[in-house]
Amino acid sequence: MATTADAASESAYRPPTVDVAELRRVLDGKYAEVRDLVRTNLAEHAAVLDEAETMSRAEFRERVKDLVVTMAATGQTGMGFPEEYGGGGDLGASIAAFETLAYGDLSVLVKVGVQFGLFGGAILMLGTKRHHDAYLEDVIAGRLMGCFAMTESGHGSNVQALGTTATYDSDRDEFVISTPDDVARKDYIGNAALHAHAAVVFAQLEVDGEGHGVHAFVVPIRRDGDLLPGIRVEDDGLKMGLNGVDNGRLWFDGVRVPRDNLLNRFADVTDEGCYQSPIENPDKRFFTMLGTLVQGRVCVGGAGINAAKVALTLAVRYAVRRRQFYATSPDEEELLLDYGLHQRRLLPLLAENYALHFAQEVAALRLHDVFSLDPDEDEDEKARRELESRAAGTKALGTWHATRAIQECREACGGAGYLAVNRFAALKADTDVFTTFEGDNHVLLQLVAKGLLTDYASDFEDLDQLGMVRFVAELALETVIERTAAHKLLERIKDVLPGGDDGWDQEAGLLDPNYQLAMLRFREEHTLSGVARRLKRGVDEGLNPGEVFSAAQDHVIAAARAHVERLVLEAFVDKTATLPDGDVKVALDLLCDLYALSTIERDRAWFMEHGRLTSARSKAITRGVNDLCRKVRPIAVDLVDAYAVPSELLRSPDLL
Amino acid sequence: MATTADAASESAYRPPTVDVAELRRVLDGKYAEVRDLVRTNLAEHAAVLDEAETMSRAEFRERVKDLVVTMAATGQTGMGFPEEYGGGGDLGASIAAFETLAYGDLSVLVKVGVQFGLFGGAILMLGTKRHHDAYLEDVIAGRLMGCFAMTESGHGSNVQALGTTATYDSDRDEFVISTPDDVARKDYIGNAALHAHAAVVFAQLEVDGEGHGVHAFVVPIRRDGDLLPGIRVEDDGLKMGLNGVDNGRLWFDGVRVPRDNLLNRFADVTDEGCYQSPIENPDKRFFTMLGTLVQGRVCVGGAGINAAKVALTLAVRYAVRRRQFYATSPDEEELLLDYGLHQRRLLPLLAENYALHFAQEVAALRLHDVFSLDPDEDEDEKARRELESRAAGTKALGTWHATRAIQECREACGGAGYLAVNRFAALKADTDVFTTFEGDNHVLLQLVAKGLLTDYASDFEDLDQLGMVRFVAELALETVIERTAAHKLLERIKDVLPGGDDGWDQEAGLLDPNYQLAMLRFREEHTLSGVARRLKRGVDEGLNPGEVFSAAQDHVIAAARAHVERLVLEAFVDKTATLPDGDVKVALDLLCDLYALSTIERDRAWFMEHGRLTSARSKAITRGVNDLCRKVRPIAVDLVDAYAVPSELLRSPDLL
Repeated sequence: MATTADAASESAYRPPTVDVAELRRVLDGKYAEVRDLVRTNLAEHAAVLDEAETMSRAEFRERVKDLVVTMAATGQTGMGFPEEYGGGGDLGASIAAFETLAYGDLSVLVKVGVQFGLFGGAILMLGTKRHHDAYLEDVIAGRLMGCFAMTESGHGSNVQALGTTATYDSDRDEFVISTPDDVARKDYIGNAALHAHAAVVFAQLEVDGEGHGVHAFVVPIRRDGDLLPGIRVEDDGLKMGLNGVDNGRLWFDGVRVPRDNLLNRFADVTDEGCYQSPIENPDKRFFTMLGTLVQGRVCVGGAGINAAKVALTLAVRYAVRRRQFYATSPDEEELLLDYGLHQRRLLPLLAENYALHFAQEVAALRLHDVFSLDPDEDEDEKARRELESRAAGTKALGTWHATRAIQECREACGGAGYLAVNRFAALKADTDVFTTFEGDNHVLLQLVAKGLLTDYASDFEDLDQLGMVRFVAELALETVIERTAAHKLLERIKDVLPGGDDGWDQEAGLLDPNYQLAMLRFREEHTLSGVARRLKRGVDEGLNPGEVFSAAQDHVIAAARAHVERLVLEAFVDKTATLPDGDVKVALDLLCDLYALSTIERDRAWFMEHGRLTSARSKAITRGVNDLCRKVRPIAVDLVDAYAVPSELLRSPDLL
Repeated sequence: MATTADAASESAYRPPTVDVAELRRVLDGKYAEVRDLVRTNLAEHAAVLDEAETMSRAEFRERVKDLVVTMAATGQTGMGFPEEYGGGGDLGASIAAFETLAYGDLSVLVKVGVQFGLFGGAILMLGTKRHHDAYLEDVIAGRLMGCFAMTESGHGSNVQALGTTATYDSDRDEFVISTPDDVARKDYIGNAALHAHAAVVFAQLEVDGEGHGVHAFVVPIRRDGDLLPGIRVEDDGLKMGLNGVDNGRLWFDGVRVPRDNLLNRFADVTDEGCYQSPIENPDKRFFTMLGTLVQGRVCVGGAGINAAKVALTLAVRYAVRRRQFYATSPDEEELLLDYGLHQRRLLPLLAENYALHFAQEVAALRLHDVFSLDPDEDEDEKARRELESRAAGTKALGTWHATRAIQECREACGGAGYLAVNRFAALKADTDVFTTFEGDNHVLLQLVAKGLLTDYASDFEDLDQLGMVRFVAELALETVIERTAAHKLLERIKDVLPGGDDGWDQEAGLLDPNYQLAMLRFREEHTLSGVARRLKRGVDEGLNPGEVFSAAQDHVIAAARAHVERLVLEAFVDKTATLPDGDVKVALDLLCDLYALSTIERDRAWFMEHGRLTSARSKAITRGVNDLCRKVRPIAVDLVDAYAVPSELLRSPDLL
């Protein structure tokens, strides 16, 4: 229902009539069936949301483990594994299933991620047939529980420098795994404190006195629930959230495993006891190994985006039920969502959530395509690098979005939002770590920037910061600047803008996706070439490259963020372009405009500083956001209903 | 230690040598002794931080209650009450004590707030001598535990519309308290689920069939731990945090209390059964009553600011211990705080915390002054209104700061920040509700805006939104615009700027507090007059005032925020101006500049849109913020050490 104010300013506006089922089909996409299976499983076991609050930590951990095994039996958690081992043979389906799990208890989600994504995924991606034959069937069935022992207390982001060692003992043809000191203890390892029988351990491989960098080994750690000799475990104790997952620390005291336990897809020790690898450069080898684990990042990004949907569903529905203060009528208090500010607080987040949903769909699709190639085929290196970059960027923006959206939605539900029964407590606490695990978001955005600066050149991608800065400064600056040169870009963009050269500055174009994309592209390329110049200038002045980088770091991160935001908008625009004309398309176009304009609005200072917005047009964008919020208001409930979070999972007697 | 980059750009810069003890004296101010008493008490009982994680909820609630009583015995919690009842007779001391409690477990803080601030405070402020004589001694000693039963499920922000009734029964000379329906149940009431013997109940008073609006009554609810007849209680259950506080719901089924139990400072029922009040206008009466409870807001603001200090202490200390990635040296990984981005993430928050600390000091001082007047003396109405506005604004900004700072600090500590032992879990969960209790922050900022628009005119202050909009539009617009007229302001500001008319645009002046303040004042007054014009235009066009207000609501909030940020900067500038020359002053000047420039930077789009920043100067401000971060870096640890959070309270074996 349009309000009087709308009527005055926009007499022609009639909100679209959204067919929720149709919109849901658009959101669920190719894997609607998989998502529905997960919805059904979650609804069936919705009691776990209460149990998380009533059980002791010990009981809850067992409950979560049992649930993970129960869900495994439905096929839900093994979709990404080869069919010959009982998997579904469809990586894309596996991502869709995982994402949807975020509607429910997130300890279950994370435990699934640890068991099937990290532990199983490492065996699948880093191991070879002998490992697949030995383990995968049991992993997929949840009979062999495992953990992913990469992070150490001393090294989380810079895992290339971790301290655990794996020394090849040629006499016994075994590796000896050791924890040299307490900072090298494995830490925060899910499944380690209680349930894992085996660990994939990342350690510095040493053969014949020579170090070859980090490699992964399958290391049994428990038998019949008892720790094996040489293994020490400490519980990580109470965490902010995710207390259904048994995180712990691991120390290895000369633990011996057969040579076969090296996950040897990318490097091996031969029968003769010699190290060999098809990838000569140790940095490149390391990053190639890591690169195969990109799935984890895609999954976490999707989990964040989907957890935020629960919060948005609750806050939007509450806002059309809750009244407070007499505003437009002296007889009835006003609905929260009819306040302009409340719209401003929730609706751009809703638009962002949709945008990220479609960006995540692209990331998952690319992942599926890249990894569905025969793993031994000659791969398209650049496609992999671009995928890693996209995954990193989507994960960073998706998880920050989750933190922000859940917080805003909690506040928008007032005191009721603070009660555990109304779901925000667990949503906040459980998702909080998403921004820093599976890659700290800032480190991930640096990775994105590095890819952009080096144009995903694999030889340089593996360089450390010092090397990267020198590379950019000394070798490739001209290329980077040439590629991102603003004047060329302006030429390109002018062609797509309706008003040609003046297209930047015509109010009529605000809702033109070509204009919106041109703005984000300009920002991306201008920021990026600015970073390149700045790095070069610093090095030319003889400064320490590390300090040059440190001083420009906010600029580096801004460039990466600009890039990812452009990808996100592109995904949204591309999606709506495929839709048939009709009210669902109208609704999504509104949301896409809202996402685009609120993204530009948030950084409008930058656009003004760089001559792409006049004051007048900048203010027009703010007005545009307000106007779009008013237009989205009447369909807001439909938009969250299309997320189709099962009602069993919403709980929230005080909100709904 | 200045880095090479610093040396190149700022060869003259030598960081100040901060005497931490001296800086601590500046922060602790007048009430250093009180703060130290609380520090000592907290350190002695630091075990409660662990107990919060290990005890059952039921045990923990008892533990917290016992601690509150124990602390009461030290005099720490009764400082704001008159000496004749065992209090300290110093409201300012009471705020200082409360704030400092935020270094420890926050259930203890909130329970103290409920018992002494809300329950005791209501009796003190709304009651008269008979109530003081009857209750205060027991309240102060913690013998009479009570709760503050204002909020209802249906009404939290708009408490004027709450549903509980108190009907005067002249036959028995009693009030009958009733809960008409479930939305009128009292909800989220601290101390209600278990410990309160009595409640101060806010209810619609009806005498002889006539309604007189909301009044407060002392209602016994338990005797010897058992509920009294007619009282129904339900536990609010698990909350996101603060689980040491027993929040609950209350229903009253015809509960009778003697006439004397009306807290009758502002209204009474006479022996003859007639309602009488010295304040004729019922709105004004209601807001006058509420106004006396302003102390709660000042306390919560201070609690947020001080809780954030714990987070900042941890994150800054971790950042000078934790190394990750090789950056400036190939031999040693880089300290987190030597990364430009890490400085950007933490140091402006540190500066903001200092700024808010001094703003809070001003708010507490004003509170002390206003309330130390004889309560029956003719009061300065406008001073009270300004205090209420300042308290509301400081509370909003202080608690949002807490949420943001704690979040950023957690992320800056990575996975370690997620473990409960490292304190962020409780800090986040416990402080989360600060932004919405004791007044939802957005509602509070609206209150601030209303005060500004009506110039704290008490006759109009009490109007509801409709009335306010009409008032602004029809009666007082000219005054508001006159008062805030941009051209007059410009004249005034030009005089204080070093370059006169061109002062706005000279880079030299960036660190001049006159320039910084002029910028914030200009924004404040320009935004405010803009709101006034917009409201008038809407009403002139014949639109519904509520809709006009709704459409302008983001603008209203922006005006309030601009006002409060100006007050905060002013407080910081005023404080540093009082300091003797020396390194502590140099350090605080650096921080004050960082606060000022990062505040301007955050809203630089607005300043550009309104012709107060050129692109070049806007970029210079960003450079200035980066430069200040580098200058604050070497003293960052001293700055957090001056908070003097007792080491027993920091825990965090993984961080320190």
